[in-house]
Amino acid sequence: MIKVSILGGSGYTGVELLRILSQHPDVKITSVTSRQYKGAKIKDVFLSLNGSTDDVFTDPSDHKVIKNADVVFCCLPHKASMEFIPPLIKGGKRVIDLSADFRLKEHSVYKKWYGEKHTAMNLLAKAVYGLPEIYRSKIKDAQLVANPGCYPTSAILGLAPLLKNKLIDSGSIIIDSKSGVSGAGREAKLETSFVEANEGFKAYNIGEHRHTPEIEQCLSQIVGENITVSFSPHLLPVNRGILSTIYASLKRHVSTAEVLYVYKKAYAKEPFVRIMQEGMLPNISQVKGSNFCDIGIKVDERTKRVVVVSVIDNLVKGASGQAVQNMNIMYGLSEKRGLLSLPLFP
Amino acid sequence: MIKVSILGGSGYTGVELLRILSQHPDVKITSVTSRQYKGAKIKDVFLSLNGSTDDVFTDPSDHKVIKNADVVFCCLPHKASMEFIPPLIKGGKRVIDLSADFRLKEHSVYKKWYGEKHTAMNLLAKAVYGLPEIYRSKIKDAQLVANPGCYPTSAILGLAPLLKNKLIDSGSIIIDSKSGVSGAGREAKLETSFVEANEGFKAYNIGEHRHTPEIEQCLSQIVGENITVSFSPHLLPVNRGILSTIYASLKRHVSTAEVLYVYKKAYAKEPFVRIMQEGMLPNISQVKGSNFCDIGIKVDERTKRVVVVSVIDNLVKGASGQAVQNMNIMYGLSEKRGLLSLPLFP
Amino acid sequence: MIKVSILGGSGYTGVELLRILSQHPDVKITSVTSRQYKGAKIKDVFLSLNGSTDDVFTDPSDHKVIKNADVVFCCLPHKASMEFIPPLIKGGKRVIDLSADFRLKEHSVYKKWYGEKHTAMNLLAKAVYGLPEIYRSKIKDAQLVANPGCYPTSAILGLAPLLKNKLIDSGSIIIDSKSGVSGAGREAKLETSFVEANEGFKAYNIGEHRHTPEIEQCLSQIVGENITVSFSPHLLPVNRGILSTIYASLKRHVSTAEVLYVYKKAYAKEPFVRIMQEGMLPNISQVKGSNFCDIGIKVDERTKRVVVVSVIDNLVKGASGQAVQNMNIMYGLSEKRGLLSLPLFP
Amino acid sequence: MIKVSILGGSGYTGVELLRILSQHPDVKITSVTSRQYKGAKIKDVFLSLNGSTDDVFTDPSDHKVIKNADVVFCCLPHKASMEFIPPLIKGGKRVIDLSADFRLKEHSVYKKWYGEKHTAMNLLAKAVYGLPEIYRSKIKDAQLVANPGCYPTSAILGLAPLLKNKLIDSGSIIIDSKSGVSGAGREAKLETSFVEANEGFKAYNIGEHRHTPEIEQCLSQIVGENITVSFSPHLLPVNRGILSTIYASLKRHVSTAEVLYVYKKAYAKEPFVRIMQEGMLPNISQVKGSNFCDIGIKVDERTKRVVVVSVIDNLVKGASGQAVQNMNIMYGLSEKRGLLSLPLFP
Repeated sequence: MIKVSILGGSGYTGVELLRILSQHPDVKITSVTSRQYKGAKIKDVFLSLNGSTDDVFTDPSDHKVIKNADVVFCCLPHKASMEFIPPLIKGGKRVIDLSADFRLKEHSVYKKWYGEKHTAMNLLAKAVYGLPEIYRSKIKDAQLVANPGCYPTSAILGLAPLLKNKLIDSGSIIIDSKSGVSGAGREAKLETSFVEANEGFKAYNIGEHRHTPEIEQCLSQIVGENITVSFSPHLLPVNRGILSTIYASLKRHVSTAEVLYVYKKAYAKEPFVRIMQEGMLPNISQVKGSNFCDIGIKVDERTKRVVVVSVIDNLVKGASGQAVQNMNIMYGLSEKRGLLSLPLFP
Repeated sequence: MIKVSILGGSGYTGVELLRILSQHPDVKITSVTSRQYKGAKIKDVFLSLNGSTDDVFTDPSDHKVIKNADVVFCCLPHKASMEFIPPLIKGGKRVIDLSADFRLKEHSVYKKWYGEKHTAMNLLAKAVYGLPEIYRSKIKDAQLVANPGCYPTSAILGLAPLLKNKLIDSGSIIIDSKSGVSGAGREAKLETSFVEANEGFKAYNIGEHRHTPEIEQCLSQIVGENITVSFSPHLLPVNRGILSTIYASLKRHVSTAEVLYVYKKAYAKEPFVRIMQEGMLPNISQVKGSNFCDIGIKVDERTKRVVVVSVIDNLVKGASGQAVQNMNIMYGLSEKRGLLSLPLFP
Repeated sequence: MIKVSILGGSGYTGVELLRILSQHPDVKITSVTSRQYKGAKIKDVFLSLNGSTDDVFTDPSDHKVIKNADVVFCCLPHKASMEFIPPLIKGGKRVIDLSADFRLKEHSVYKKWYGEKHTAMNLLAKAVYGLPEIYRSKIKDAQLVANPGCYPTSAILGLAPLLKNKLIDSGSIIIDSKSGVSGAGREAKLETSFVEANEGFKAYNIGEHRHTPEIEQCLSQIVGENITVSFSPHLLPVNRGILSTIYASLKRHVSTAEVLYVYKKAYAKEPFVRIMQEGMLPNISQVKGSNFCDIGIKVDERTKRVVVVSVIDNLVKGASGQAVQNMNIMYGLSEKRGLLSLPLFP
Repeated sequence: MIKVSILGGSGYTGVELLRILSQHPDVKITSVTSRQYKGAKIKDVFLSLNGSTDDVFTDPSDHKVIKNADVVFCCLPHKASMEFIPPLIKGGKRVIDLSADFRLKEHSVYKKWYGEKHTAMNLLAKAVYGLPEIYRSKIKDAQLVANPGCYPTSAILGLAPLLKNKLIDSGSIIIDSKSGVSGAGREAKLETSFVEANEGFKAYNIGEHRHTPEIEQCLSQIVGENITVSFSPHLLPVNRGILSTIYASLKRHVSTAEVLYVYKKAYAKEPFVRIMQEGMLPNISQVKGSNFCDIGIKVDERTKRVVVVSVIDNLVKGASGQAVQNMNIMYGLSEKRGLLSLPLFP
């Protein structure tokens, strides 16, 4: 059994990790910390977990609670992560960090987009970007995995085959993404309150969202040149799900069927990527609660553009499920271990 | 492996059975019928199941598809059930019927509430009402299980301990229930279209809903006297979930804590009933996708009434999950087999 | 033109008053206060109002802003109201208070349910409960109107004809109410955040909600005896709307048609009460944005109970619309003045 | 008083026209037809209108009902429109057609996108495209107004100032639009049923939606060259609202502030276009129930693209409100007449 500790387990990625890991046959959860709820029973904070655990949230500053863990899932916000993780690494723990702190390779880029000096720069080179479909071999031996952001997961999986196969003009990429409200976290805020978000829809942080450089870094590594993208996030009035509609100009004439063939080949061995057949497009409702990424393709012959539609559950493939997939890789387990549950539709 | 056939598998109880049974370690699905989608791949009708099956929907009139099954789940509408099931019973199959056709013991009551003459009356005595918490011992050996309605499941589990312990005036029961839209089935209808139901809320069929005699029959059997209840269903703008708020006059003074103690004792060994602690009330969001029934209690000393709040996922404990629980009992398996998945919150 | 000041105008009752009063032909808004947003343009806080006003929110402690007003709408929370209102009354202003502070006649009842000593007891006798259908004649000359709570408005309008006509056992009343989330106010709270409330449904404060004594006080006045009711509020995942399902035991045999006749007669001259025809029940979606109260009736002959379903928009007839209706009465205008807009369906 | 007849008044554009026109001070509704509901009282089909009308739906084939009308609003589906409208035109009626039948100038384009031969080609030249902000002067004297589609309204208003001022590369336009479900009409369909659409989100008809040539025709007329656009519609789980996120490459360096200035100038005299200030982006919740189009701008200096976000209520500015605005222009009334009601937020 892999002994697991969760840091900052009272947010939505925390409760989702608890849901998944409680049902993972090879995992034993040894501690879950929460500054806000320390001392409270987990099942009193998350009634959904009633019956599966009698544990309490512990204080994150009580370091001995983490001592027993083999691997630590860090669900803290950025900045807090780069404070808590260095001693864990030093202490020999393997760490899967769900924050943004170790995703960007260049500390100057971090500074520019996050407005803070990075305080654990020495770990940036060591950290592996935890997108298994791209970096699987490096994840296997990583001590520190930087779990990808939710938007980047949907965008990169949607774009990688086009770029690897040099089908598109790399300067023409536009990513129009729409995310459910759980992506904004569990803290009470006016703009994510029910009445403000329900029956509403808006774009936010166009061209300025912090996931932009993360997408660009990964796409640039894939093609070996600097890529700049337009990225526009929107807030969808649903609990879970991200749909990214991605536009790019085709370098040469290809049909929808040909592009689909490229995608099916690229992801043929991937357990969690499902390519839609021609004429069908994915819906966030079809991946809810699962680790799947569904991708649909449409070549628009009139405009010589290809449109990719990529959907994930932001809390699963976009966060906690992908983190468990990374753990499975790190421990030589089947990637599907503990991640078999089918989408909950309706 | 138990060989399972599903009749009428293209509705919401069908897709939910497919979701649960696909992940059940002791089950092999041998056929799924659908008049509407015969010949189509299941995964093309329900994209959520893509990756878990390559089977096609078969024609229900093609009787040989059912021949191999040990047990048949019948998800047909009432009337169709009582047509399809008698030959199955004659052929020695075990049947779990999710329709209303075999729930009521008196054919005259069926006639009165469903407006149709019952055409398989001889099976009414044979059929066992499939509410495990009340009829477990009979279910074990049943050939025909009448799987309870969604509203009755929430109402009966909410009321049984009060009645068994003679705490309430049996003439004072009022059940105010609210159900998510999936309870109305998958057929396209104006009143359950998105725009009509969203941001709306209404009561319907007050005092006339067909689940009323089913609730009364079971409660009457529990106490050994004829019980009449007020039952008012409402349509909630959510996909899944039923919450029943149940009112009854107390026969003698008892506190909330005392009533909770009675419930905890009554359901102590039940794997799927969770009693809330004093001061807490259940939320449908906490049982979504699971087979749990959560129950909260409040004694109102001012009015000498007890209020019980009972919630289930209408598609799981209110239909397909309970059907699988019944199958587990019929085949001597642990009741939790295949039903372990935790609620999906949020 | 009636000069109007709004105290505490940045909540949902505030923005709704602004929406209604901006379109009222006899009103001029002279000031709107907000502690939180003082100095900000109203149209920057509420983008919906962009184009209708260039005013800014003023500081509530700047008393001169109110000086010019003929009538003050007070949208402050309880406790704050009883602090701010006495000097206004002393200064000769007419006041319509949307808080609970002046609704209960007995300060001991206020103390019991609100946990606070009342600090303006001398005004309790002077205050008129602003439910026009019951207290119209007193409202006309009132200096201080206590605008009813949202739940009480739906419950009292639903029950008054039954009680006035002595059709029901006054000890048998059960009110099961369901409210949209805007009823909880605009402050950011975890339990009313989108992800927690969406796809959820729960009861809360059963038998303990502060609107209970308000309902009981008014019903008791109507019949001239002390009435105690069971009242259970629930949180509906919609923005606007309250539906109350009300149960009572009939004293004698009457049909649905007879009860409907009583209601039609009782409300024949009311501009904002619509009685549904037999066989139809109201839906919150049909009153959205309007000052209507829709009422449907069903006599359940089997249980000898009558069930009343009463719906309002909690922000209009349940708060700001009713406040404007009261103002119209106070100033001798047609009650429909400024309140003519039809429900927004869908 | 302008005498108005509504053809096909039982859909969502019909009920919205009824809501708006019932409150229009210069209009008298003389007849409303509905094949499906003929003979039924309007207020029994649309409970929201209870109290405002006692009229019944009439049979569309009963031509004399239309005889009295000065102007006919045609809410029939395409194909039906081009059948019903020619005799009205011949009879001298003024017609505002909400279908697509008279929007496209070239019958060959109609054939290509709608798959049907146009049967009233002779009226195509006569018809005026009813987007007041672009074609106001022609609308004034038009006998036949082709009321724009909902998506085109949001897209064209969002793009016109950029094109008129030659700020963008006209070959670079990408329009990513998201519409509430009422845009799909009131007919019951599986894909727009509550359970299928709620908590879901999908793209559909990418590059193939019939509104594409309508957008291109109008943009091409504005600049005097043939413009081709990428257009991707999506289905939002809300009742009302369209948000279009529009991307285009800038021809030269301009700042967000400069582009906003261009928009403010372009729409300075428009009563229904509101330009957001820098740093703010519109939300569909802020225009609900109103005839406003809100536009926000963001120049992305990194990618040299401008992003325009344009929102409308699809049933008001996207359909019935705009139709009334056109009627006002045709009859020399103030454009705001009957369209003053503020957005309903929340």
